[in-house]
Amino acid sequence: MFDIIAFDADDTLWHTEIMFIETQARFRQMLVPWADAATVDQTLYQAELKGFADFGYGIKGFALAMVETALALSGGQIAARDIQRIIDFAREMRRWPVDLLDGVQPVVARLAQTHKLMIITKGELIDQESKIARSGLADYFSRIEVVSDKTPETYAALFDRHGIDAARFVMIGNSLRSDILPVLAIGGEAVFVPYRTTWAHERVADEHNPGGYHEIEHIAQLPALIEELSREQAPRRKRGGRTAPA
Amino acid sequence: MFDIIAFDADDTLWHTEIMFIETQARFRQMLVPWADAATVDQTLYQAELKGFADFGYGIKGFALAMVETALALSGGQIAARDIQRIIDFAREMRRWPVDLLDGVQPVVARLAQTHKLMIITKGELIDQESKIARSGLADYFSRIEVVSDKTPETYAALFDRHGIDAARFVMIGNSLRSDILPVLAIGGEAVFVPYRTTWAHERVADEHNPGGYHEIEHIAQLPALIEELSREQAPRRKRGGRTAPA
Repeated sequence: MFDIIAFDADDTLWHTEIMFIETQARFRQMLVPWADAATVDQTLYQAELKGFADFGYGIKGFALAMVETALALSGGQIAARDIQRIIDFAREMRRWPVDLLDGVQPVVARLAQTHKLMIITKGELIDQESKIARSGLADYFSRIEVVSDKTPETYAALFDRHGIDAARFVMIGNSLRSDILPVLAIGGEAVFVPYRTTWAHERVADEHNPGGYHEIEHIAQLPALIEELSREQAPRRKRGGRTAPA
Repeated sequence: MFDIIAFDADDTLWHTEIMFIETQARFRQMLVPWADAATVDQTLYQAELKGFADFGYGIKGFALAMVETALALSGGQIAARDIQRIIDFAREMRRWPVDLLDGVQPVVARLAQTHKLMIITKGELIDQESKIARSGLADYFSRIEVVSDKTPETYAALFDRHGIDAARFVMIGNSLRSDILPVLAIGGEAVFVPYRTTWAHERVADEHNPGGYHEIEHIAQLPALIEELSREQAPRRKRGGRTAPA
């Protein structure tokens, strides 16, 4: 049995990537006089990568990367009103409706009856808190953690802080890089639920994928998998023997 | 006795306001062709206020407010390289050295020997985590909480989460609005240590100041005050009587 079932949020519980894709399409349109779509995408991605260390993941970092890309690709010719529009894009993104993925609500409601649920999400505090509040799901989760990055160290620190036994923890998410591999690395279980598109930064090359996780196509398959894993875990533990009480 | 002594971070443990003041001075210089200093300050402050709901407190929100202010006050005439400079200001702020306030290191080290210490700070996760890591103080604190705002509700949620008894909690900080009044409102004790300058947004008009907190001029006075309050608390509790064990 698992003590904790933890969920990633963006593109696991609700759609997020689509918001970046749609905003980026409008941004590309703005830069048509100076660069083709592929150049815009590539330059913006480089600006985002450069920005992570200073500005982190999230809407504001994305906005600053768009401003830098627009200045660079237009050779400084971009109109002031277009810079303002980029900042307004960021405002719209902050207010974007929270659109749950199909099947999420009933699955979360059902699992909350039998397990402690947690959200572990990367990004900006103010943005994630607002989305969680607007999602209608907050009451199903006993713990919500917004972290600046998802590494084995981040998860280990969370486990330590919440007294979580890694062997009785399972993480559900759409990013191999952030939700699955770091959890496996410290002895937890992980369930990969791929989203229809994956941001380049979250992709993992095949040669860096050690396997060892579970994969489902749709979150509706999660309760059955959790039940199956719980059944498997019990005998496996028994076979491993128990230490005698001191 | 207190179970927890919690500290605000910016301008309580280390200097922060000075970084905003110096950056704002450079920004004002940039806008000399279009606006006087007072107009720049006022327009920027309005842009920050407008930005809080969407962008929160912190360096990136400040950068976006500077960009909006520059576009507005220059009537769109601001040069592209100056917009880029504003983003570079934000990068410099992120890398600004962490300069502890005089007396902080020994006081924190001393109190950590007798009490559980906590940091409760407002702002951006990535920025605050980086400053805490660079401050050299992280090991003295058993809990570090970065919150998106500091209201009575925020503190109540933290108390709930950490099982903190408000009557045995004291908050130390430089902002009446964020560190002192909300803590008093939910039954904690608070020690106000004014910083030499207070950001307009954190100021509290006299008529909204109910008193009831402790004020010291310098953090070096904190250990003696904590000791004094602990001595006072014990008899006060006794006078209140104890409930008989069930």
